Amino acid sequence: MAEDLFHSTDSVRGCGALPHAKSVTFDGPLKLARGGELPQVTVAYETYGWLNAARDNAVLICHALSGDSHVAKHDECDDPGWWDVAVGPGKPIDTDRYFVICPNVLGGCRGSTGPNTLNPATGKPFGSDFPLITVDDIMAAQRLLIDHLGIDRLRAVIGGSLGGQMALTWATRHPDRVAGIALIATAPRLTSQALAFDVIGRNAILRDPNYRDGQYYSEGPKPDVGLAIARMLGHITYLSREAMTQKFDPDRLRAREIRTQFETKFSVGSYLAYQGDKFVERFDANSYLTLSMALDLFDFGATREELIRNFQSAECRWLVVSFTSDWLFPPFQSRQMVDALVALNQPVSYCDVKSDCGHDAFLLPDELEIYGGMLTAFLANLEEDDSALAESGAGSADDSWQVGAGPREASHFRRADGRLDYHTMLELIEPGASVLDLGCGRGGLLRELKRRGHQRLIGVELDELEIVECVRRGLDVIQADLNRGLEVFADGQFDYVILSRTLQTVMDVERVLNEMLRVGRQGIVSFPNLGYAPLRRQLAEEGRAPSVEADEGFAWYNTPNVRFFTIADFETLCDEQGMRIHQRIALNTGTGKRIIEDPNSNADLAIMVLSH
Amino acid sequence: MAEDLFHSTDSVRGCGALPHAKSVTFDGPLKLARGGELPQVTVAYETYGWLNAARDNAVLICHALSGDSHVAKHDECDDPGWWDVAVGPGKPIDTDRYFVICPNVLGGCRGSTGPNTLNPATGKPFGSDFPLITVDDIMAAQRLLIDHLGIDRLRAVIGGSLGGQMALTWATRHPDRVAGIALIATAPRLTSQALAFDVIGRNAILRDPNYRDGQYYSEGPKPDVGLAIARMLGHITYLSREAMTQKFDPDRLRAREIRTQFETKFSVGSYLAYQGDKFVERFDANSYLTLSMALDLFDFGATREELIRNFQSAECRWLVVSFTSDWLFPPFQSRQMVDALVALNQPVSYCDVKSDCGHDAFLLPDELEIYGGMLTAFLANLEEDDSALAESGAGSADDSWQVGAGPREASHFRRADGRLDYHTMLELIEPGASVLDLGCGRGGLLRELKRRGHQRLIGVELDELEIVECVRRGLDVIQADLNRGLEVFADGQFDYVILSRTLQTVMDVERVLNEMLRVGRQGIVSFPNLGYAPLRRQLAEEGRAPSVEADEGFAWYNTPNVRFFTIADFETLCDEQGMRIHQRIALNTGTGKRIIEDPNSNADLAIMVLSH
Repeated sequence: MAEDLFHSTDSVRGCGALPHAKSVTFDGPLKLARGGELPQVTVAYETYGWLNAARDNAVLICHALSGDSHVAKHDECDDPGWWDVAVGPGKPIDTDRYFVICPNVLGGCRGSTGPNTLNPATGKPFGSDFPLITVDDIMAAQRLLIDHLGIDRLRAVIGGSLGGQMALTWATRHPDRVAGIALIATAPRLTSQALAFDVIGRNAILRDPNYRDGQYYSEGPKPDVGLAIARMLGHITYLSREAMTQKFDPDRLRAREIRTQFETKFSVGSYLAYQGDKFVERFDANSYLTLSMALDLFDFGATREELIRNFQSAECRWLVVSFTSDWLFPPFQSRQMVDALVALNQPVSYCDVKSDCGHDAFLLPDELEIYGGMLTAFLANLEEDDSALAESGAGSADDSWQVGAGPREASHFRRADGRLDYHTMLELIEPGASVLDLGCGRGGLLRELKRRGHQRLIGVELDELEIVECVRRGLDVIQADLNRGLEVFADGQFDYVILSRTLQTVMDVERVLNEMLRVGRQGIVSFPNLGYAPLRRQLAEEGRAPSVEADEGFAWYNTPNVRFFTIADFETLCDEQGMRIHQRIALNTGTGKRIIEDPNSNADLAIMVLSH
Repeated sequence: MAEDLFHSTDSVRGCGALPHAKSVTFDGPLKLARGGELPQVTVAYETYGWLNAARDNAVLICHALSGDSHVAKHDECDDPGWWDVAVGPGKPIDTDRYFVICPNVLGGCRGSTGPNTLNPATGKPFGSDFPLITVDDIMAAQRLLIDHLGIDRLRAVIGGSLGGQMALTWATRHPDRVAGIALIATAPRLTSQALAFDVIGRNAILRDPNYRDGQYYSEGPKPDVGLAIARMLGHITYLSREAMTQKFDPDRLRAREIRTQFETKFSVGSYLAYQGDKFVERFDANSYLTLSMALDLFDFGATREELIRNFQSAECRWLVVSFTSDWLFPPFQSRQMVDALVALNQPVSYCDVKSDCGHDAFLLPDELEIYGGMLTAFLANLEEDDSALAESGAGSADDSWQVGAGPREASHFRRADGRLDYHTMLELIEPGASVLDLGCGRGGLLRELKRRGHQRLIGVELDELEIVECVRRGLDVIQADLNRGLEVFADGQFDYVILSRTLQTVMDVERVLNEMLRVGRQGIVSFPNLGYAPLRRQLAEEGRAPSVEADEGFAWYNTPNVRFFTIADFETLCDEQGMRIHQRIALNTGTGKRIIEDPNSNADLAIMVLSH
């Protein structure tokens, strides 16, 4: 079996403090959220880059359950860090630009106070006497460090998995101290399935006879079997089924020969044995119990109402990223958070990154273009909210209205050059109005509205690269498929909802229209008119299916446009559905003129302003 | 927490033989597939119903890893069986009709020879000296029983999960001894992910200090912790994430109070602890090791080529059923088997039943209507292959050509009343030709072809209830979505592939056409003609989107018909794609006449016979 099956993001180091870690000890007692206290707290941490004079370029990175302060290597000779792909000079979290701080968590075993720390009351390690801590307490220890470093306000807190729970806690407990939060592959609380895996892992440790009430430090064997089994289980949940198939199916019976007490009959078994054995060398079973329980007890809300209540105090910008094959922190949980943030009108961008890598995707280079691109753009926007817009060139505001070189993959949201309807639509929107743009592409319309001073603007798009581009332009955009509804948005949340040359691509037209009018005070819809005289002639005289301008580059058998209708058809539908048409604008995009006379024959494009 | 969370399909009984089990011991040694032998073999089994005089109504049911011979209760006072929903008088596997046999597997611990049996060589239980057995050996022991019962040929072998592997083995090792095989929630081999869970379970047992080389029977504690942990893990994999959320999320912190050595902080934890504790009362750790290894080593092939090679010797009818939320034996693995069977022209029906219940779905009543309906129909067809067809009424052959009362849910395959094109199509198919009907509905066309003596007929359909109906009519039908291609079928496998009034519902027209001509010597396509003069007038004169007959009951905004084209458009596409049109038949379904003159204007329906 290939050597690289055994590569992992863990660097192999003995237990204890890390070479580059600094540490600071706080002597006052730390009161814990669920009662009790720790008499003193040490926080081990590593930093990268330089704090600027204004002390406003600090980025806090929160690690996951088995991580540590060594987020990246400090130089070429250094051991690998657990997030080298994302952190370093010129990388998405650019240490030439930001002062990156990564502390080992409270309860951990790599230098910060944890169960393996001496309990001053007994002179022995805490062991199982280490108090029950929560993510709140972990965050409180991080805050002590940030105070110590003299940083009033963090540019951003970034966390994946358990680290994401810490980032969430920062945002809501200390809203004044953080400008942006990036939540990666995380959740407001674990699913019952994810919880179940942790329960089994803890049972394996606690019922290992070598656990001995947690006092195994000084002599005798440690609960290595239990901890290794917990880790093996973890590894299954970090990978997707697809990733495991790719790694292990081609040679499932050719296991690597390793010295281990565990089964090595199958290649996947020898991998798990290797990961289990390696883990017990560097991690403490009591820390595993402590941190997995903190993870399991974290509960930011199960319902939309609870989430909205809990997010209420936040005042930052948000980036939320999930990965399609992550089944430990599944994408729907990220969407739940996005839904609540949108309901609160908090600025948020979201992408569910297509990936086969499972939960581990956020640690791997495979999808770095998308999630790294999102991080880079998000951090840049926090620097100065408006500069990104100004920098990216006022003269090219219209470029998103050009169709790209080839047909866009898998996007429902095609737009041909739309100068005329684009300007017409802009005229319909009064200054300061809030706008939701469904199928926003690269955000041309929203950017123009932002330039005009509109504050509450959100785009919805399906294409990942276009979403990255929107974020790069300082816009808030949410990945969603229109055909699945707009449940993320609340009733009447926007003054206008835009559906520009998109309705004809939507399977469930009624639902999308009704949803847009539920969410917006008014809807502005533009669509190609099948009644346009030249189209009628195509069918009537040539006996051919009419081809509208939006079909350009496509034929009847492969166009994304699946609904064809005339202005008259649309008006009938509005009538039947009880939708009021406030304005009808008929355009001939060829001549650039508005059409007054017989629009159903003379216009190729219609713009309607609707409400319920 | 509600009591019923703790309901499971296990009946709680002490370890050992079951009250209703008979057993038979075979004294000659059983040679094992991987070497070694067992000096004698006892098989415990239960039977239900009566063997008929012809001795041809026997149905063998193969249980899963932790099952036993008690598949169903014998009377109202009896303990529940593990498959009471499916087996009993008047149930899908009807014990009034069939003689049902369910043996405990070799290697098990409920009466058949297994690790807890006395080893005649030592006078002690085999323990870990029990030889490595495979599914082949398990099947060999079942065959001894079937011989003993004087049954030459089984009506059917039915197995789920590990039991499915036994059924597969029967079909290919003893093709002459079984008429039908039903594979439920099973796979040709485990995924690496599923394998990984088993490896961890075995590690937990083998590294439990109480395992003591497997000789724990006579005295001292048993490896209950390890076995319970293996079982807890199993339970996660038997449920889906959705099912766990429904069961445990509403009260995740209100755990049931139970006496256990395991963690009970969370409701899901107390459920797992309960299941683990209950399991060790009735199951033997060595049997768990033995059977999970047999499951893991089973390998019927990973590639299409291997599967085809391994299925080659089978001579039975097949029923394959998977469940959409089963992630332990995921549906794609059932499809792999179906693909191979189809490639071999072996008669097979397949349905991927929509379910939230995960792998356990096949044991639960939730989706019984579909999977039970499939089983009932499948068994009935085996009784006498042609009688089902005759019985169901020769006079009503056309009923599947009527559209039902309401719009059909989620089916791409609508069909209006089609007498004219139906008969026209039948005329195009020469006697004895093999036919694949894409979007076969309830199988009207195929049934008529079957009546005419055609042998190789397969339908493809999406709708579950229609699939059940097809099987009830003695037809072979495979669930598939045309938009995802026809990869299940081999090049040139059929004389004709039919696409009747379906092309206009397909997004990827090119792919479907090319696939149909790859798979069939010729394709027969019927479609509504948008060029039909009244439709032209609808657009040209009334300014309305034309509405073809297939749209009946729908409007432009919700019709399943998403591709509109004229005969001329279709001919152009054929030209461009290098498809030859052998016959063009244009119909006016209103007048019931064939159209010769200007079909693009005068026909509302076209039928084309195509090839590459």
